[in-house]
Amino acid sequence: MPDAAFRTLSQFRTLLGDMAGPDTAAAQGAQARNAELTKPPGALGRLEDLAIWYASWRGTDRPVIESPQVIVFAGNHGVTAQGVSAFPAEVTEQMVLNFQHGGAAINQLAKTFGAKMDVHALSLDTPTDDFSKGPAMDEAQVVAALLTGWNAVDPKADLLVTGEMGIGNTTSAAAIACALFGGDGADWTGRGTGVSDEGVALKTRIVSQGLTANPEAKEDPLQALRCLGGRELAAMAGAIARARSLRIPVILDGFICSAAAATLEKSVPGALDHTVSGHVSAEAAHARVLKEIGKEPLLSLGMRLGEGSGAALAIGVMKGAIACHSGMATFGEAGVSDS
Amino acid sequence: MPDAAFRTLSQFRTLLGDMAGPDTAAAQGAQARNAELTKPPGALGRLEDLAIWYASWRGTDRPVIESPQVIVFAGNHGVTAQGVSAFPAEVTEQMVLNFQHGGAAINQLAKTFGAKMDVHALSLDTPTDDFSKGPAMDEAQVVAALLTGWNAVDPKADLLVTGEMGIGNTTSAAAIACALFGGDGADWTGRGTGVSDEGVALKTRIVSQGLTANPEAKEDPLQALRCLGGRELAAMAGAIARARSLRIPVILDGFICSAAAATLEKSVPGALDHTVSGHVSAEAAHARVLKEIGKEPLLSLGMRLGEGSGAALAIGVMKGAIACHSGMATFGEAGVSDS
Repeated sequence: MPDAAFRTLSQFRTLLGDMAGPDTAAAQGAQARNAELTKPPGALGRLEDLAIWYASWRGTDRPVIESPQVIVFAGNHGVTAQGVSAFPAEVTEQMVLNFQHGGAAINQLAKTFGAKMDVHALSLDTPTDDFSKGPAMDEAQVVAALLTGWNAVDPKADLLVTGEMGIGNTTSAAAIACALFGGDGADWTGRGTGVSDEGVALKTRIVSQGLTANPEAKEDPLQALRCLGGRELAAMAGAIARARSLRIPVILDGFICSAAAATLEKSVPGALDHTVSGHVSAEAAHARVLKEIGKEPLLSLGMRLGEGSGAALAIGVMKGAIACHSGMATFGEAGVSDS
Repeated sequence: MPDAAFRTLSQFRTLLGDMAGPDTAAAQGAQARNAELTKPPGALGRLEDLAIWYASWRGTDRPVIESPQVIVFAGNHGVTAQGVSAFPAEVTEQMVLNFQHGGAAINQLAKTFGAKMDVHALSLDTPTDDFSKGPAMDEAQVVAALLTGWNAVDPKADLLVTGEMGIGNTTSAAAIACALFGGDGADWTGRGTGVSDEGVALKTRIVSQGLTANPEAKEDPLQALRCLGGRELAAMAGAIARARSLRIPVILDGFICSAAAATLEKSVPGALDHTVSGHVSAEAAHARVLKEIGKEPLLSLGMRLGEGSGAALAIGVMKGAIACHSGMATFGEAGVSDS
């Protein structure tokens, strides 16, 4: 992209602050249509709210979901040198190959729900610096990662899922959450994809060290993303922001995706209004992040894989909601008594 | 069907008691496969349990879901004469036409998840008798309805959803739940698809009258189905039983479907082992029935429509679970380190 959408974190924040809100006329039209559909008022529960919300972002009272996009971003983390993960850092690249060959969980879920899937490996050979000793990225690095995400979104997509792969990235997400929402390291660390009690204690210590080593992270959410994040987290944030500018609703995935997204919401309140939480994961800190950003998850199935898997499963719920809203007959069309 | 599978409730119960359990070899094979897939152990949460359970009923360690079937049964209820519903009884037939023309919520959901949908209207011109004054059906009537359900299942289906439409049938379901699980009418009545506080009080009174008028309902779960049920409830029970004999897993829908299904479980413990709860509805008594029959719902989205809608939405979850289980690469295939 010769003309980058932004070149600094400050420009990115300005862009984020200038983005438009939902289409209130479309929301009203969708609300009116919903009231006419052949069902008792409210009987589809949350599906009705989802449909009206989706309509408001798509700018039409009778939207469709035909082109969901799943983007998986992968990055490596210098903090893995501290032994915070149950898996070796090589697994990030091995899993990228697995994504490319169609063998991972997210491939199956994207296929099941008719989503196009793209994979972006971000400088895997150059892990971010160890955030427990200082900033993970400099400004040029985090901006490059944000732009990778920004440019990865298909403007023709009508629903977006951002997923991640990055050995060590639950520790990074925990540090970001701690910087954004306060508390101490122990409030935000968990087992990730399978560390022991000792591993959790270590992660907690590393998160606390990271906060001490990066005082600017508590001052500014985008500095938290730069100092404590990873490239795949920044790329998810960039993609979620781009989706907003393109009026593409986003389904948030688990703890890592939600922590990355939260840096946008804390920078510009309302920046996540075009997003819904796809699921709440088994990583306990995820529910706390969702509460902080005011999101109620669609699914709660004990998943804790990442890759965008929980959000991809929720594409089915979104498709069901929109199919009902836009496909059902009205009382008048069907000749059904409405009381 | 010239040779009916059963001609009496007693024969039906015997049939139910003689049905085979899951295939333990397939379950073990699926468990072994699950342990080899490219994800940390347990990271797909409940999807893993669902896949192994589904495999055990399909008798293969790597099953697929290609032919889900949704069957909607409709019936009319004499008890509507008591004013227990917010809608007139004519709506049952109007909605059957809506199903046949493809305009209802269940049509959109079946289509979204690739399910074949069938509709069976059961003697709509002849409502069941008012159960608050005596038995809703005689034995011939309930057996005929059970057989309608039994014969409606496509032997080639690989997943079944049974839904219902019947003005007044939350009152019938409440009475059955009360007969099966005890408590008084107030424990099992709710707003259905939209009655007022006064309506709930009336439903509660009618349920209590129904229990008094049908003492045999508390003695025998299948008598509860006959005396307090409706044809569509009996048909769902018949279809769920047939699915067991065909080794077709079933996703249970909301309160009415679950109350009908519970008559099987209370007749023969384990009769619902081939079923999973698709969702918990906004009708409060539904969660209580699920607890009584030991089922944890897959979804909780505040739906309260019936028609099989909540269960149909859960087809997406089941498809996702099976796609991951049967489609993912193993660690060996993908060359990913597993520790």
